[in-house]
Amino acid sequence: MDALSQLIDALRCLPGIGHKSAQRMAFYLLQYQRQRGLHLATCLDTAMRMVKHCERCNNYTTEQQCNICVTQDRDPALLCVVESPADVVAIEQSHAYHGYYYVLMGKISPLDGIGPDDIGLPKLEQCIINHNVMEVILALSPTIEGQTTMHFIHTLLKPHALQITQPAHGLPSGGELEFLDGRTIGNALNNRANVVL
Amino acid sequence: MDALSQLIDALRCLPGIGHKSAQRMAFYLLQYQRQRGLHLATCLDTAMRMVKHCERCNNYTTEQQCNICVTQDRDPALLCVVESPADVVAIEQSHAYHGYYYVLMGKISPLDGIGPDDIGLPKLEQCIINHNVMEVILALSPTIEGQTTMHFIHTLLKPHALQITQPAHGLPSGGELEFLDGRTIGNALNNRANVVL
Repeated sequence: MDALSQLIDALRCLPGIGHKSAQRMAFYLLQYQRQRGLHLATCLDTAMRMVKHCERCNNYTTEQQCNICVTQDRDPALLCVVESPADVVAIEQSHAYHGYYYVLMGKISPLDGIGPDDIGLPKLEQCIINHNVMEVILALSPTIEGQTTMHFIHTLLKPHALQITQPAHGLPSGGELEFLDGRTIGNALNNRANVVL
Repeated sequence: MDALSQLIDALRCLPGIGHKSAQRMAFYLLQYQRQRGLHLATCLDTAMRMVKHCERCNNYTTEQQCNICVTQDRDPALLCVVESPADVVAIEQSHAYHGYYYVLMGKISPLDGIGPDDIGLPKLEQCIINHNVMEVILALSPTIEGQTTMHFIHTLLKPHALQITQPAHGLPSGGELEFLDGRTIGNALNNRANVVL
């Protein structure tokens, strides 16, 4: 197989990229972006070799601890438990949270053979004891697996004298009421609050 | 900027990939496909450095001539002119053509400042003389730029005693008549042929 066919084949490791898209990407890089293609090769190689998990929160980092865990100006009493590093990025972009994180790197999914020990839950308990956490926010996806994981963590942490919370469920910002599903509207009505203007 | 941010940024050189998709790709590779990610880095590096243009037909190759031009069992009297290497792949997959190719690597587009010399048309004339071509098939896209390029090549090649053809325009195979545009149906009706069963 020649270098071009190998590149097209290798590009298919990217999520959502089939043969046709891979071919388009390869031809595009060869015709217009050789320098950036070479740069991508270097970045890929470095990241695949160097990026590991933060020893405190499990998030991706090239150091021993990630750049969130090493900052001193966050509230150590707050710990937000999320499924993936992408969730950390999303919450950080909201600028609404100033505590630390714990990244599960997955969720409990018996159908896929993923149990509590596969997503490092024992380490979570240790993390809570080590850092004097007072409140744990379970920011897990409102899916079956996410809710299963949430219930499991809730049971696990109950013996510790902790406040265990979850983000509010209600109307998403900017959405039109008529296009929302019944469950979201139901949750929003059940959790209604006094109007404060 | 750390290795992960650099990777996310570098992935945006791929066509159609924005920040969000790049982030998703990076996290996916790190979590599930590190080995394939490393392999992609190697393939990218090799292809960006080694792939050049075939000296006869302009298609991509790592050798002096591409693997179509080096085969001896094709019809040297036939030359199919296409815009890009992707067109060669598409025509080869039809298994309906057994001549050689000439890849323009672009099309005449005065609005983008691309003239006849930018897409190597002088070399096409030389190629036709060198290889005793008898018929040139202009398989260019039915777009304004494609048609402009076709007219230009037609004028260029007229002095040579050559047959100059283009692929038939008509109904695409497997398409439903009701969803086709008026121009396609019009062409198909104008080019109608006797029913042979």
